[in-house]
Amino acid sequence: MDTYKSFVATPEDNANSLYPNGDLISQCKVFYRNATLDHFSWGPTANGETHFRQRYFVCDKHWRHRGPIFFYLGNEADVTLYLNNSGLMWENAPRFGALLVFAEHRYYGESKPFVKCKDHMQYLTSEQALADYANLITILKVELDAEHSPVIGFGGSYGGMLAAWMRFKYPHILNGAIAGSAPIWTYLGENPAYDPGSFAKIVTYDASPEAGSAANCIPNAQKAWQALFDLGESQDGRTQIRKHMRLCDHAPMNGPADAAALVEWAGSAWDYLAMGNFPYPSPYILNGAGLLPTFPVRVACSHLAGDFGSDEALLSGMADAIGVFYNYSGSNTTCYDFAAAVNPETDEDGTFWDYQYCTENTMPFAKNGAPDDMFWSAPFDKKGTEEACQARWGVTPRWYWPNVEWGGRNLETLTNVVFSNGLYDPWHGGGVLRNLSDSVVAVIIPDGAHHLDLMFSNPQDTPSVKAARRTELWHIQKWINEAEKLRPWP
Amino acid sequence: MDTYKSFVATPEDNANSLYPNGDLISQCKVFYRNATLDHFSWGPTANGETHFRQRYFVCDKHWRHRGPIFFYLGNEADVTLYLNNSGLMWENAPRFGALLVFAEHRYYGESKPFVKCKDHMQYLTSEQALADYANLITILKVELDAEHSPVIGFGGSYGGMLAAWMRFKYPHILNGAIAGSAPIWTYLGENPAYDPGSFAKIVTYDASPEAGSAANCIPNAQKAWQALFDLGESQDGRTQIRKHMRLCDHAPMNGPADAAALVEWAGSAWDYLAMGNFPYPSPYILNGAGLLPTFPVRVACSHLAGDFGSDEALLSGMADAIGVFYNYSGSNTTCYDFAAAVNPETDEDGTFWDYQYCTENTMPFAKNGAPDDMFWSAPFDKKGTEEACQARWGVTPRWYWPNVEWGGRNLETLTNVVFSNGLYDPWHGGGVLRNLSDSVVAVIIPDGAHHLDLMFSNPQDTPSVKAARRTELWHIQKWINEAEKLRPWP
Repeated sequence: MDTYKSFVATPEDNANSLYPNGDLISQCKVFYRNATLDHFSWGPTANGETHFRQRYFVCDKHWRHRGPIFFYLGNEADVTLYLNNSGLMWENAPRFGALLVFAEHRYYGESKPFVKCKDHMQYLTSEQALADYANLITILKVELDAEHSPVIGFGGSYGGMLAAWMRFKYPHILNGAIAGSAPIWTYLGENPAYDPGSFAKIVTYDASPEAGSAANCIPNAQKAWQALFDLGESQDGRTQIRKHMRLCDHAPMNGPADAAALVEWAGSAWDYLAMGNFPYPSPYILNGAGLLPTFPVRVACSHLAGDFGSDEALLSGMADAIGVFYNYSGSNTTCYDFAAAVNPETDEDGTFWDYQYCTENTMPFAKNGAPDDMFWSAPFDKKGTEEACQARWGVTPRWYWPNVEWGGRNLETLTNVVFSNGLYDPWHGGGVLRNLSDSVVAVIIPDGAHHLDLMFSNPQDTPSVKAARRTELWHIQKWINEAEKLRPWP
Repeated sequence: MDTYKSFVATPEDNANSLYPNGDLISQCKVFYRNATLDHFSWGPTANGETHFRQRYFVCDKHWRHRGPIFFYLGNEADVTLYLNNSGLMWENAPRFGALLVFAEHRYYGESKPFVKCKDHMQYLTSEQALADYANLITILKVELDAEHSPVIGFGGSYGGMLAAWMRFKYPHILNGAIAGSAPIWTYLGENPAYDPGSFAKIVTYDASPEAGSAANCIPNAQKAWQALFDLGESQDGRTQIRKHMRLCDHAPMNGPADAAALVEWAGSAWDYLAMGNFPYPSPYILNGAGLLPTFPVRVACSHLAGDFGSDEALLSGMADAIGVFYNYSGSNTTCYDFAAAVNPETDEDGTFWDYQYCTENTMPFAKNGAPDDMFWSAPFDKKGTEEACQARWGVTPRWYWPNVEWGGRNLETLTNVVFSNGLYDPWHGGGVLRNLSDSVVAVIIPDGAHHLDLMFSNPQDTPSVKAARRTELWHIQKWINEAEKLRPWP
């Protein structure tokens, strides 16, 4: 436990800089392996490629040879994002003598199969990614002379879904999984059904006094959207929008459709702020480009706390509120261009995730507006989603496939998964919120946002996230004990 | 139970004709569904096809609405072969009020995705086939208003492997599986290792006095191969081979390589006879083209029972012995052409299975010759197999993939599978021969051959196969009870 302090900052240090835990990447070795491009078909592949270079990091400072392997199942970003943020793995490697492995998801970061991936997206599926991880773990264990080491999967968000799915589909390879904020029950065909409006409702909860936000926030937001729609109808109104919402000169505002696009863009700031509604400043939701403040939804809501007498003041308040996300540094943007994403990295990741969304991860979303949520009325539109996916990618979602492939709510045979969910996190509406068995347990963090429990510990951590981590560690130890009972050597 | 007698012949009738159980196909409805061609990638597919027509049969005569579904997972032949032979399903449908479904495996029978399949073999994988079955069951249950009906999978040989694998990968869709003669542990990388020589050893066991065969059979067979190799060295010798082995005039016999090919072909007759070493005449191993006699290895061995003074008599005996397979009717062939398969249907099926063998089902085989087996020395040749597969299909086997994908021997989490194996069946060397848990059990049929237990009952059935079926029914009932406890309606 002593060596641990030498590379992980103390909790007191953690809030001080963007990545307060030192240069974690330099504590790992980076590897690139030849991974099979298509595990499930054998034909001629695009460009004649049969393999791709998959990146992964191995961090063995605390590994006791043949001890456990903590394996992060990379999700839809450069894997260094997860390497830098998965404090739960780093902080507990010493006590378990664990090897840390961070594996990058195909098509993200540096694990891109093609020079122009966008022309050959067809191999970007969750099943292919899990097969990559299954092969990687198998080969790695042979290389490390650690074929019987227990392997614990970690993942947050889509990575958490992958971790749970991998335990479901490859239980011989993953001894257990910590699935942080994994909305595995977010598809059409769930029984009982998933509520497509739940995401918006939970964002709204974050903006409510119950979650610490200003009382006027929700009604003011509702008024602001209505004002934007109304003003968008006239040339005069659109001029007002441009001014009070501080749009860049080149941002389009030529008709109601532009106003609607602005509303969509402004609304999504709230989605991200809710996901990142952490009890201390965090770079996570900004992909490391900057820091969101402590409980950013409360900060955003503080700009909508007043009784606004005019549209001018109301829109100006909304502009300030979404600035908590879009102008995170206070000076990274001087005007809003709602056609641009927050930074190029997020932009590309978002595009690739959109492909996954349009193929097999098509989750239904709806906004209802008052009284259900702080947004406007935008019902779930199955046909519209299909048309948009056809237009963007030439694919039609297989809406019901996830339940066939991943089991939906019928997980009676699943074992050894902790599903953690923060109630500030809008994704928890599709999460596992109750124990399914002795070994498939739900951990609820009432004041937690998107997989807070996976992050580094912090002096601002609330008792609930500390308790969540203790529960997770208890299960990890149990899975390791189980695995070691089955193993032929010490 | 009364209605049962109306369509299934009595045990006494069963031995009387090729398909003694009446026209089973006419008791089913045939359906063709649009199945997804590639479940795991989304790109442009061969010929622009995105779907294929999958055939399946539904037989509802005994179904109690919302009762169990008995689902045969078709393997590498026309599914009517399994429909006609799976007596265990037919005979027990009445007592369980079960629906029978026989689903055809892609690329076989009438479920061919392309007019010229051989140009587009890449979608022929076990994973794709299981995804077909998973979708089919899911959709069928909705159509039948039977979403909570327990589903029991049945399969023999590769179909049994599919049944076990489906319970492993899709436990939410298959409540349990009867996996008859499923050699799931037949790959490189098993731990402990699979013995590549086990198949030949078990064929040899069938030809031994312990299994009821003539005492001289094994040494005579060994001598016969040696004689064929020796005679193949000279023109004179090859003339003798042609005569005493009764080769057709057009069969090539121009050098030692032709003699070796003949040996290979003659040896494989023993493989098939061992698989079909049933206690009564059966059409199964001949794909319904004819009948093999009762205990056909014993019959074949009866032709090698003597003390042969000459190569002439020895080869003539071998020619008679393999005639039990190749000249099954006694008059279906007047001379042997070792370049031809037993009938065209078997030929095409064999070719397609060879593709599966060359891609992800690459099982190592070896013959050792005396004293291990009745054959000759033909060690497992990894490189040669790879070269042959490249030459035939342009693919290189992924030798170690089956263990990654299907778990190898690490099936600690598997539940609800009966693995049955006959000790006459040469595939049992890669089968599950011991219980893995309370609900994953091995059933051994000492005098059974290739999934005898799945066949119709017969007056010649031995006590061991009757006991095996009783065990299987007990587990099926248990799985149904379990499933029904979880279900919301009666």
